Amino acid sequence: MARTILFLSDYGRKDPFVGICHAVIARIAPDARIVDLTHSILPQGIRGGAMTLADAVPYAPEDAVFLAVVDPGVGTERRPIAVAAGRAVLIGPDNGLLSLAWEALGGASEARAIDSPSVVRGPVSDTFHGRDVFAPAAAHVAAGLSPQELGPAIDARDLARVELPVPKVETGHLHCEVLGIDRFGNVQLSARREHLEGAEVVDATEFEVRWSGRVSVLPHVRTFREVAEGVYAVLIDSSGWVALVQNMGNAAEALGLQIGDRVVVALPGRTAD
Amino acid sequence: MARTILFLSDYGRKDPFVGICHAVIARIAPDARIVDLTHSILPQGIRGGAMTLADAVPYAPEDAVFLAVVDPGVGTERRPIAVAAGRAVLIGPDNGLLSLAWEALGGASEARAIDSPSVVRGPVSDTFHGRDVFAPAAAHVAAGLSPQELGPAIDARDLARVELPVPKVETGHLHCEVLGIDRFGNVQLSARREHLEGAEVVDATEFEVRWSGRVSVLPHVRTFREVAEGVYAVLIDSSGWVALVQNMGNAAEALGLQIGDRVVVALPGRTAD
Amino acid sequence: MARTILFLSDYGRKDPFVGICHAVIARIAPDARIVDLTHSILPQGIRGGAMTLADAVPYAPEDAVFLAVVDPGVGTERRPIAVAAGRAVLIGPDNGLLSLAWEALGGASEARAIDSPSVVRGPVSDTFHGRDVFAPAAAHVAAGLSPQELGPAIDARDLARVELPVPKVETGHLHCEVLGIDRFGNVQLSARREHLEGAEVVDATEFEVRWSGRVSVLPHVRTFREVAEGVYAVLIDSSGWVALVQNMGNAAEALGLQIGDRVVVALPGRTAD
Repeated sequence: MARTILFLSDYGRKDPFVGICHAVIARIAPDARIVDLTHSILPQGIRGGAMTLADAVPYAPEDAVFLAVVDPGVGTERRPIAVAAGRAVLIGPDNGLLSLAWEALGGASEARAIDSPSVVRGPVSDTFHGRDVFAPAAAHVAAGLSPQELGPAIDARDLARVELPVPKVETGHLHCEVLGIDRFGNVQLSARREHLEGAEVVDATEFEVRWSGRVSVLPHVRTFREVAEGVYAVLIDSSGWVALVQNMGNAAEALGLQIGDRVVVALPGRTAD
Repeated sequence: MARTILFLSDYGRKDPFVGICHAVIARIAPDARIVDLTHSILPQGIRGGAMTLADAVPYAPEDAVFLAVVDPGVGTERRPIAVAAGRAVLIGPDNGLLSLAWEALGGASEARAIDSPSVVRGPVSDTFHGRDVFAPAAAHVAAGLSPQELGPAIDARDLARVELPVPKVETGHLHCEVLGIDRFGNVQLSARREHLEGAEVVDATEFEVRWSGRVSVLPHVRTFREVAEGVYAVLIDSSGWVALVQNMGNAAEALGLQIGDRVVVALPGRTAD
Repeated sequence: MARTILFLSDYGRKDPFVGICHAVIARIAPDARIVDLTHSILPQGIRGGAMTLADAVPYAPEDAVFLAVVDPGVGTERRPIAVAAGRAVLIGPDNGLLSLAWEALGGASEARAIDSPSVVRGPVSDTFHGRDVFAPAAAHVAAGLSPQELGPAIDARDLARVELPVPKVETGHLHCEVLGIDRFGNVQLSARREHLEGAEVVDATEFEVRWSGRVSVLPHVRTFREVAEGVYAVLIDSSGWVALVQNMGNAAEALGLQIGDRVVVALPGRTAD
């Protein structure tokens, strides 16, 4: 049975790009299942794509093939790569997009540049490597090809990586930034439970949150439903990130927060700037 | 061969929620087919979701697993349930979402609360039961697990239900309300062919339609194409509902109609309010 | 093993129309893979749908079943048809939607009107032939039914066809029109590499482009990345069409171009109107 392919991109679903990649895969690996993780990564969103791909690791089949295409450098000299990590294989551009996922899988055990003429679909378009390079490589691996057959070995230490911002943790307060915003307007911060623990605030019932010269005291809840409609709160979201949310509302819009903004989460009265 | 899973939710497709649920299913039931019915149910749209799920019953494989997640009560005490009806099994929250589908399937023959630790993915998130409870349960049933293994029996008579508004039917006129509006702006009313028959108007060639203090006489057609571009009409839509439509236009916008609005459909000159 | 179905429509993904068609297929052909090429063809966009379907031909399995539904004439007398071309079968309305694909497959070898009561799902809705006629026909063919079983033979020469505008090619310049615009705003023109060759301009390093009384000299590149952010260029896109693009921008919006607009591409100083 073929391996399952988890596919993530910034292609959207209005144009046929995703469908064409599915067709290419169906032709090479007729029985390979494809899971469309999302195709709505923001254009150029390498960091966001890398986070979403890594978040999927615990839920994917262990021998899955991760196919990820957020590729502002298509047509330049950035390499197409295949990375083995655990029992999984990751396929995509060498721009950091795959790096958080291979870390979540325990580290890259091997890397290859994809250039085998029996895999790559020639002539390779200058603008659509998803169709001509990445989808064929993922399909061949899903159908049983060893990643070693994709092309020459490269040193995994030379691969591009995405660095997530590390929060500054002090007793009673955390300095972090906005990592992501979902379609409900929930604001993901660059902090996880362990950072709340490090700051000794994980058991706090409320937080003082500061951003852009504003300050607000928000309850610390397990779920939206603990606060009334329209009320803001802090919770640990389903991916494990500390998040600012609004019950039945769009926290990001209402609070004026964007990706990259700095946010301080502190015990009330303990904020330091 | 695994059963087919019909999946409906309000997750949208921009975030990876749907993709993560697919990954969870692929891991548990590698050969279970998933049909994505729609993931664009309006947030909180339990009634709309219930109608869409029930509309799909005649087209689904008889032994399908219906997986439905429109779940404003996630993280509260509403139960996750599995309901057997005919040869199908329905999985979702106990908030009425599944109820119209089990009625369409001939009634609930058995109900279970889902809590088996060998099914539920622990630790269960407070906000994403699709991933941790409902998708695993659907996948296990698709792969062959008996619904009895999901958790303790509950009394089907205690389950939450959605009630659809029943039109008031009198000779010559029907009082109904707007049930739904699709992306083309077609306005679905709370009446079906049998109500037109009950009012003895099913053979009328035109109707007087009244709403919000406005009145208009519209032709009764079988299809859009019988009227000129821009013209409004009344027809029975592909799900069997009486609907107000506009050829090449958006009837809901043009007529100012919203879900829940009251509409009278009558023989011309027979309207009573 | 069942054939793969490539499915294209203008149904969008918000309503359950696509999902219902998938359910119908799953019931008839449980192991037929479905590739959703796109469901975002513009309403009434027969020509755009025909082009997208034809563009997919080189990437589809050779024995694929193409299921295409862009059907403004649903409920009128336009016929539902099945067309054999190469080893593929195309299913859809007789309005030209399938015609560019069968040309790309080497021509129609046989055509049938779809009316077999063992295939069509009765009673046939007046508005949703995707569910009741086209999806069942595609599923039966994918599962092994010969197209001859779908209904009576019809003369392929009588089928509706889409005609693409042919550019006027003269030495040094091409007169074409805008065929399509993708979600990134790239502007597809009605010219391919062979037309650039015919005009003896394929090796030009820049072009003078004229439209709507405006004129601009743009570099001829292989990929977006050769020009700086915000700069316009001319390239041959991944489907083989000459296209106007803007690196990191929306060329169609910025240049004020729409489908059907006339555009002249010439060697600088060689434009003639």
